[in-house]
Amino acid sequence: MTHMDDRTLTSSGFYVSQEAPIHTDDPIPTPSAPAPDILRCAALDLVVTDLAASREFYVDVLGLHVTEEDDDAIYLRTTEEFIHHNLVLRRGPMAAVAAFSYRVRSPEDLDRAVAFYTELGCRVERRAEGFTKGLGDSVRVEDPLGFPYEFFFEAEHVERLSWRYDVHCPGELVRLDHFNQVTPDVPRAVRHYQDLGFRVTEDIQDEGGTVYAAWMRRKPTVHDTAATGGDGPRMHHVAFATHEKHNILAICDRLGALRRSDAIERGPGRHGVSNAFYLYLRDPDGHRVEIYTQDYYTGDPDNPVVTWDVHDNQRRDWWGNPVVPSWYTDASRVLDLDGEPQPLVARTEASEMAVTIGADGFSYTRPEEESMPAWKQGEYKLGNQL
Amino acid sequence: MTHMDDRTLTSSGFYVSQEAPIHTDDPIPTPSAPAPDILRCAALDLVVTDLAASREFYVDVLGLHVTEEDDDAIYLRTTEEFIHHNLVLRRGPMAAVAAFSYRVRSPEDLDRAVAFYTELGCRVERRAEGFTKGLGDSVRVEDPLGFPYEFFFEAEHVERLSWRYDVHCPGELVRLDHFNQVTPDVPRAVRHYQDLGFRVTEDIQDEGGTVYAAWMRRKPTVHDTAATGGDGPRMHHVAFATHEKHNILAICDRLGALRRSDAIERGPGRHGVSNAFYLYLRDPDGHRVEIYTQDYYTGDPDNPVVTWDVHDNQRRDWWGNPVVPSWYTDASRVLDLDGEPQPLVARTEASEMAVTIGADGFSYTRPEEESMPAWKQGEYKLGNQL
Amino acid sequence: MTHMDDRTLTSSGFYVSQEAPIHTDDPIPTPSAPAPDILRCAALDLVVTDLAASREFYVDVLGLHVTEEDDDAIYLRTTEEFIHHNLVLRRGPMAAVAAFSYRVRSPEDLDRAVAFYTELGCRVERRAEGFTKGLGDSVRVEDPLGFPYEFFFEAEHVERLSWRYDVHCPGELVRLDHFNQVTPDVPRAVRHYQDLGFRVTEDIQDEGGTVYAAWMRRKPTVHDTAATGGDGPRMHHVAFATHEKHNILAICDRLGALRRSDAIERGPGRHGVSNAFYLYLRDPDGHRVEIYTQDYYTGDPDNPVVTWDVHDNQRRDWWGNPVVPSWYTDASRVLDLDGEPQPLVARTEASEMAVTIGADGFSYTRPEEESMPAWKQGEYKLGNQL
Amino acid sequence: MTHMDDRTLTSSGFYVSQEAPIHTDDPIPTPSAPAPDILRCAALDLVVTDLAASREFYVDVLGLHVTEEDDDAIYLRTTEEFIHHNLVLRRGPMAAVAAFSYRVRSPEDLDRAVAFYTELGCRVERRAEGFTKGLGDSVRVEDPLGFPYEFFFEAEHVERLSWRYDVHCPGELVRLDHFNQVTPDVPRAVRHYQDLGFRVTEDIQDEGGTVYAAWMRRKPTVHDTAATGGDGPRMHHVAFATHEKHNILAICDRLGALRRSDAIERGPGRHGVSNAFYLYLRDPDGHRVEIYTQDYYTGDPDNPVVTWDVHDNQRRDWWGNPVVPSWYTDASRVLDLDGEPQPLVARTEASEMAVTIGADGFSYTRPEEESMPAWKQGEYKLGNQL
Repeated sequence: MTHMDDRTLTSSGFYVSQEAPIHTDDPIPTPSAPAPDILRCAALDLVVTDLAASREFYVDVLGLHVTEEDDDAIYLRTTEEFIHHNLVLRRGPMAAVAAFSYRVRSPEDLDRAVAFYTELGCRVERRAEGFTKGLGDSVRVEDPLGFPYEFFFEAEHVERLSWRYDVHCPGELVRLDHFNQVTPDVPRAVRHYQDLGFRVTEDIQDEGGTVYAAWMRRKPTVHDTAATGGDGPRMHHVAFATHEKHNILAICDRLGALRRSDAIERGPGRHGVSNAFYLYLRDPDGHRVEIYTQDYYTGDPDNPVVTWDVHDNQRRDWWGNPVVPSWYTDASRVLDLDGEPQPLVARTEASEMAVTIGADGFSYTRPEEESMPAWKQGEYKLGNQL
Repeated sequence: MTHMDDRTLTSSGFYVSQEAPIHTDDPIPTPSAPAPDILRCAALDLVVTDLAASREFYVDVLGLHVTEEDDDAIYLRTTEEFIHHNLVLRRGPMAAVAAFSYRVRSPEDLDRAVAFYTELGCRVERRAEGFTKGLGDSVRVEDPLGFPYEFFFEAEHVERLSWRYDVHCPGELVRLDHFNQVTPDVPRAVRHYQDLGFRVTEDIQDEGGTVYAAWMRRKPTVHDTAATGGDGPRMHHVAFATHEKHNILAICDRLGALRRSDAIERGPGRHGVSNAFYLYLRDPDGHRVEIYTQDYYTGDPDNPVVTWDVHDNQRRDWWGNPVVPSWYTDASRVLDLDGEPQPLVARTEASEMAVTIGADGFSYTRPEEESMPAWKQGEYKLGNQL
Repeated sequence: MTHMDDRTLTSSGFYVSQEAPIHTDDPIPTPSAPAPDILRCAALDLVVTDLAASREFYVDVLGLHVTEEDDDAIYLRTTEEFIHHNLVLRRGPMAAVAAFSYRVRSPEDLDRAVAFYTELGCRVERRAEGFTKGLGDSVRVEDPLGFPYEFFFEAEHVERLSWRYDVHCPGELVRLDHFNQVTPDVPRAVRHYQDLGFRVTEDIQDEGGTVYAAWMRRKPTVHDTAATGGDGPRMHHVAFATHEKHNILAICDRLGALRRSDAIERGPGRHGVSNAFYLYLRDPDGHRVEIYTQDYYTGDPDNPVVTWDVHDNQRRDWWGNPVVPSWYTDASRVLDLDGEPQPLVARTEASEMAVTIGADGFSYTRPEEESMPAWKQGEYKLGNQL
Repeated sequence: MTHMDDRTLTSSGFYVSQEAPIHTDDPIPTPSAPAPDILRCAALDLVVTDLAASREFYVDVLGLHVTEEDDDAIYLRTTEEFIHHNLVLRRGPMAAVAAFSYRVRSPEDLDRAVAFYTELGCRVERRAEGFTKGLGDSVRVEDPLGFPYEFFFEAEHVERLSWRYDVHCPGELVRLDHFNQVTPDVPRAVRHYQDLGFRVTEDIQDEGGTVYAAWMRRKPTVHDTAATGGDGPRMHHVAFATHEKHNILAICDRLGALRRSDAIERGPGRHGVSNAFYLYLRDPDGHRVEIYTQDYYTGDPDNPVVTWDVHDNQRRDWWGNPVVPSWYTDASRVLDLDGEPQPLVARTEASEMAVTIGADGFSYTRPEEESMPAWKQGEYKLGNQL
């Protein structure tokens, strides 16, 4: 771990370090069993309350491709995916996440997953025939932070649609890019996911060392998942990647044309963290979906870890556009292996919303300047009257 | 004039009419002298208080090309312009607009301008040598609404830089697209500018016929100028066009990199009105500059006039993103021909801000539905606590 | 007319003049009757031999919107068009152009068209009910160069689909941009179309004053039509505009996915002339269709006329990519008012293909350098063995 | 290895297999020593004959960022790179490649590299201080195919310029993407690079099993390097990635503006292989540089291997645009560890150029159809007269 004082200030206003400058005093024990070798976040198993409404949103509006469907579930994939699906919409009584699913490098990694989580005392289930259509032998666990994690290697192959431009739409989604998990204690979560083999690429801290969020990767992008501080376990969002920025704008235009612009919660914009171009949508159940493009390669072991000051108002939007309060407060519940919602644990450390736009919070465009122009100020203060 | 009941509702949620459905009971008299034949909005003469700061903004950040400069003024142009300049930055004691400058079809149109405004009882000045470098014989008037209007035909030609990709930047501005004027009584302004030869392309009204804004054109785009309801005469903004949407995003990215993101007031986004992609910036004096791309051809005499309901929250942003209050309230003063600020006349009709996000105002995404999702509501109510 | 020696060399390698530097010794007489006031090129009436195959190309591949269709004709329009159609596909025994159709400013301009062409001795027909569905009172003529020209004002209005992003495709075509006509004597054609009210914006000449092609406009873009030197009358191509360059690339990608890439004849590329981004396709009958975006505003009366040296190999492709021979040689026949093909008149002046890539021809990237790199040379010489 | 008959034909016209369907009867022995763990292609050490001319091309035209320079060498990097450089321009008497440089996962991998190549009987040099500025302990070898390969882990860190939009140009290059090596026997090369840890992602074969080219990756993109059949060892090209397609078009536009369009050898276009958008340039010494964007994720161990038919004319350009002969024939010499050019070994199997556009060769757009339209035929036949 890099000490805060050893970080290097860049000309872009954030810091870089060699190791994630994140420490926990309350770690989950590190198992002696080796972690499974995770390739990438690979699929989300999502429970929706109105399958037809969700199909309309993900297929007719967002253009995901249907691999297979029946009365209870729809198996969807992005253009580039060559395994059966990367999103399952599953009919259920309560909108929630049933599983964050990761692909591992080999069948043997499932044995490792069983040993790893068993040593941690977690509930573990393995099904040789898989938990969902299209996937084979799989392990599902309730992880130490309460999240339903799934691991699999075997998967039915389907055609990669990258060359099938005749079925692409203007906002074509090409990849599942990442998950984002809400959890009360970010350093504790980071330490655990580091044990599972993730590496931190970026984080947001304040000058006292409180960590508000951290981004972690297996594949060499900015993240496969992130830990966002808040009452959890919950899912903040799932993100799909497009090729170009205009593809994201096309999704907005299409939502306007369908008089569904209220599905847009935040953006489009440029992230500070990750440097990606983004858009946040809310699906018919309120599940948050990010559309994302153009972060950077992180695959070298000495990839510099980027740390943002929580008061830097370009950290979450490089253009300084305000983060709407719902983006901080709303998230999707996650299920245990019986399909029941996991109870929530409240965050006890400072909230990013409070310290940035709360009554005593503040944000800056230039660190040396206290105030923002009139046209920016109002939006940045909770409790302020517009 | 088309009666409101004769408008046609489109599948996009706005109305179309054959004639602008705008009527005034208090018209400025129509001169018997014919109006000058205006080609296009051609240049803005802008007074700034810190010439070096403005140069940095318009040249170093926005990439406008310097045709000529001295201690008191900088003459700038966009890529495509072949006349001397389309923006003058002029050092002065108070930030304001010295002239909205239009190019006319022939030298004889200057005689027509003199006759037209003289008959209206306006103050008129003509200078054979022009009021600014690079332009020849010119007429300046204080128009009946209090705006400083300039007309010219003679202009020094300079090289069009369209093929000079070696000097283009990622956010290259190609054309001066339009002006936008704040005036208390929109129908009265529309009627006057129709007398001057402008045609209405779009407007915003409520169900009672109050007109909040109207767009008017000479060249066959959505506008050369617009009348926005408010205390006036003031300039709401001046707009420059780019070729593609990514050029506008590049300007935002650049402002972030320069830690000047607080120059972004609103957007980027897609307009409902005009269907263009947009961004609003504030220059060092607070003058508002729009960056704009891809509206539509309007040159046929029966071009349908588009009318938007003021409560349609996609009218000003097709994606339903909120209009910030400063965008409604702030504007630049304009000067009389002595260089003194024109006194303001207050708008007496309803304000668009009040009826849409004010205490008793409302906006909808779908007309049949009263409420918006939680993540949209807070932003839309002035007086609401965030 | 500007004399060749009075042209100004620009830093981009072409010349500019105040008047088109084009003169004819063999003019078509200028009628004493005033010309109709043409607004814009508005529609093409195209005869195709296999209506189903053409429908597949223009609707399923290119995404044009069907306004109406029957067993004999399909009426299509681009996104922005608000009149009934801008392309008619008409079943017929021989692939050809039935009419180049222009919209005029008023019904009275049809009387002017009748008088203008009658004075020229041309065959003229007028039909109060129009020649095609969706258009009213129309005049068709066989013009002095043999082209079937149509003029109309009355047209059925339909919905402009600009806001209907839900029905847009990745390669959405937004406007009919221009026609391009092949005719043996370019200066003679230019002079005639100037009489009809067109203005020259660009041309290609050699050092001896031979004119190979000229571009002419009514609406303020680079052209509504162009005269290309060759055996005529024939249609070289019809062009539709997209908003952005990626839209054009998407059409190529889609053709590849459909295994119809052999519909691509030339491009995509950047034009020297017009500075637009382009692609040339061939439809199932071999009619050439250009997809085009981002030329420049030309509406001022003193808009500089651009003249390119025929030997400048960036004139037709700014990137110096070769023009394929078929692009020079192939074109569509045009019909007389009885529906019979107009006889061809051979060009007697030098051909652009011969002087640039023919045995004694030459092209340069930099005028002072005689040769091009090995990887460019082979492609530029007809008669050379690859 | 998948047998040819077990490949699966996709709806896009190519085949997929589980293992690369490539076999060699003449393998280089597989060392018993384990291969170094290569992260990615990381830098090219390029000898140029005129350093100033090369600087102009790579810095002033292409916009690479100078980390450091002296009289003999310039150290350049792309936007995203955080190590000292990914391109060295080194002054020398003969244009050539001095080293293809790969980054390994750890310092220990250098020991593995020494053992691996020593066992193969290759010449191996190790320098604790590195062979170039900015890199530490490094190993250089003459590999069994005659290529100068370098391995390093230690590198000086510099600032990643991803957020520095103020120094980006319209054609900004973000990453070094891959190398491409010309070698006589592709299956033999593939087998050797598989021993070094590379995985095949795509290849081009004919129906008899002759392999014309193969693409191989370490990082999860389509390639870190490729083997192209031809007289070797030579470098076919080095490739840099941009974010979007318009960035590549901007490079072409800029070259046109600088009257350097003859630096464009082929493209821009869409590859069949890799599905990426591409452009090939030639630098002042004739070294070929590809600009590349948007291939696909290949990081799963069962990533389907794509095999293209050599006669499919969409394999190298998805739009069917012709490959110019020089692209097949020209390549850069490579140096041995003494700086002397490696002797060439001639390819004995069929050449891709001969079998596709040679006298007896053929290419198809649709496999069932023998001929292409007239406008495509001429370009595809060497020996044909244009």
